[in-house]
Amino acid sequence: MASLETVQSNKSFGGVITKYKFESKALGGLNAQFNVFVPESDGSTKFPVLWYLAGLTCNEDTGPWKGGFLRDAADAGIALIFPDTSPRGAGVQGEDDDWQFGTGAGFYLNATADKWAKNYRMRAHIIEELPAVIQAATSIPLDFTRQSIFGHSMGGLGALTLYLKHRDLFVSCSAFAPISNPTNAPWGHTAFGGYLKGGVDEGKEYDPTELIKTVGGDAGVHILVDYGDADNFYKQKQLLPENLVAAAEKAGFPTSQVTVRAQPGYDHSYYFISTFAPEHIKFHAKFLKA
Amino acid sequence: MASLETVQSNKSFGGVITKYKFESKALGGLNAQFNVFVPESDGSTKFPVLWYLAGLTCNEDTGPWKGGFLRDAADAGIALIFPDTSPRGAGVQGEDDDWQFGTGAGFYLNATADKWAKNYRMRAHIIEELPAVIQAATSIPLDFTRQSIFGHSMGGLGALTLYLKHRDLFVSCSAFAPISNPTNAPWGHTAFGGYLKGGVDEGKEYDPTELIKTVGGDAGVHILVDYGDADNFYKQKQLLPENLVAAAEKAGFPTSQVTVRAQPGYDHSYYFISTFAPEHIKFHAKFLKA
Repeated sequence: MASLETVQSNKSFGGVITKYKFESKALGGLNAQFNVFVPESDGSTKFPVLWYLAGLTCNEDTGPWKGGFLRDAADAGIALIFPDTSPRGAGVQGEDDDWQFGTGAGFYLNATADKWAKNYRMRAHIIEELPAVIQAATSIPLDFTRQSIFGHSMGGLGALTLYLKHRDLFVSCSAFAPISNPTNAPWGHTAFGGYLKGGVDEGKEYDPTELIKTVGGDAGVHILVDYGDADNFYKQKQLLPENLVAAAEKAGFPTSQVTVRAQPGYDHSYYFISTFAPEHIKFHAKFLKA
Repeated sequence: MASLETVQSNKSFGGVITKYKFESKALGGLNAQFNVFVPESDGSTKFPVLWYLAGLTCNEDTGPWKGGFLRDAADAGIALIFPDTSPRGAGVQGEDDDWQFGTGAGFYLNATADKWAKNYRMRAHIIEELPAVIQAATSIPLDFTRQSIFGHSMGGLGALTLYLKHRDLFVSCSAFAPISNPTNAPWGHTAFGGYLKGGVDEGKEYDPTELIKTVGGDAGVHILVDYGDADNFYKQKQLLPENLVAAAEKAGFPTSQVTVRAQPGYDHSYYFISTFAPEHIKFHAKFLKA
C-alpha cells in the first residue's frame, strides 16, 4: 500500500483540510494529490464521507477554494474528499493539447484505448484506490460505510455514473450542471472516442442517462441535480439534463427520487455552485446521518 | 467621467456579481478592473457598501472566489466592492520582479517617488475614483452614505489605514491578519522605501499603529481584527498585531472598540479567512444597517 505524504494542512471551520500526495498504482505509478476535510473532532468520531468531483480544467483545490462546501460540512459533521480530475504528467502524446481532453479532463472513467489505458483510470483511483489508501492511514477518521458523492459538470457526470454503478457504496448523489447524456454531446464524443477502445458505444457505461435505465425504478435512488438556465454549456447542449429526466421518468422513478431543477439566471460558474452548495450538503446529510 | 464596461456578470446567492473595466485616471490612464456584488433587489433599494481589499499577489477576483463573503452579504442586504491590488501593466521598470512589490502589491497608498507616482495611486483609486465612477453609473444601486471596509494582510493594512484616515467615510473596519505596523516590518520597509519619496518615515501615513495614535480614544471607532497564531507571516513578524493593540490601549481605546483576536491554529490562507468571514460581515452589518 502506497503511503501518504502530507503536502499541506490548514485549519478551517474548526476542522482541518489536508492535501496528500502518493504514488498511485491506479494511475500507472504517477504521483496523485487529493484533499481531505475532516470536521472538528473529539478524537473518537469517525465521519461520514462526501466526495466532490470537479469539472474540466479543475483540480483537487478547486472545490475547497471556490465551492463554499467546508462551512456546511463542518456544521453537519461530514468529511469531504476532493480528488484531482485526471492523472498529471503521464506524458501521453497530445494530453495537453485540448482543455476538454487529457490533463484536467479524465472523465472519471477507466480508459481502454491502448494509449490511455495505463494512466487514465480515474474510476479505479476513486472507487478502489483512494478509500484503501486513506483507510490504511489510520490517522484519518473517515467512516467508509457511509459515503455520498457530488460534483460539477464533468464531475457531475462522474458523481452520477459512480453512484449509479456502485449503489452499494453511496447512499446519495447530487450534481451541479452535470454532463447528463455524454453519448449525445460533443464533450462525450471527444472523451469516449479518445479514451475508450469501443468509442461512444462503450461510453454508455459512463452515461447517466443510459445507466439510469438499467436501475429499476423500484430500487430507490436519491439524486438531486441543479443547473442554471443561463449556462452556456447547457445552451450548447453539452449537459442535456432533460434527457436524464426523461429516462428516469420512463424507468419509473418519481421526481422525489430524481429531482432535477432549472435555476433561473444562473450559469456554469462557481458563483452558481456556491449558491446551492448549502442545500446539496443538507441533502446528503439527511442520508449520511440517517 | 470614465464610463464602465461590463466584463462579466454572474448571478450568485440571488444577487449579481459584475466585473467592470474602465480607464482609470487615478492610475495614470491604465485600464482597471473591479467586481461589485449587489444583493437581490426589488429595483428600489440602495444597498450599503462593504469594501474588501485583498492581499499581496491577489486581484479583484480573489475575494469573491475564495472568501465566502457573498452568502452572508446577500443575507444581510449588503453590497460588496472588490478592487484590484495594484495598477496592471504600468510598465515601470522592475514592477514584476518581486511578488512583495509592484504588480499585485500596491499597498493602497499614493506613491510619491518619481518612478511610481504616475500609476501607483491605489488610495486615490479607491477613496475618490471608484465611488465617483460607480455613482455615475446610475444602474448600480449602492448607497455611499453607508460604507465599511475590510481586508486581508496587505488589504487589512489598506482597510485599517483608509478607515483611520477617512472616518467620515466609513462606519466600521475589520481585517484578517493585517500588516499592522509596516514601518517596523520588512514588507513595509520594501513598500515605503520604494513607493515613497520620504521612505519609511513618510510611511507612517500608511501605518495603522501610527495612525491610531492620532485618533483620540474618545472618538469612538469600530475595529475588529482576527489573525491566526499558526500564520507564518505572523511568526516572521510581518504582521505585528500586538503593536496595534498596545498603541490602541495607550491612546485610550477600550477593547470593545479595537478588538484583536488570536485564533489558535489558523494560518494566513483563505481557509482561515472564510472561517471568520461570517462574523466579520455580521460585525459590519450591525453598523451599516443601524
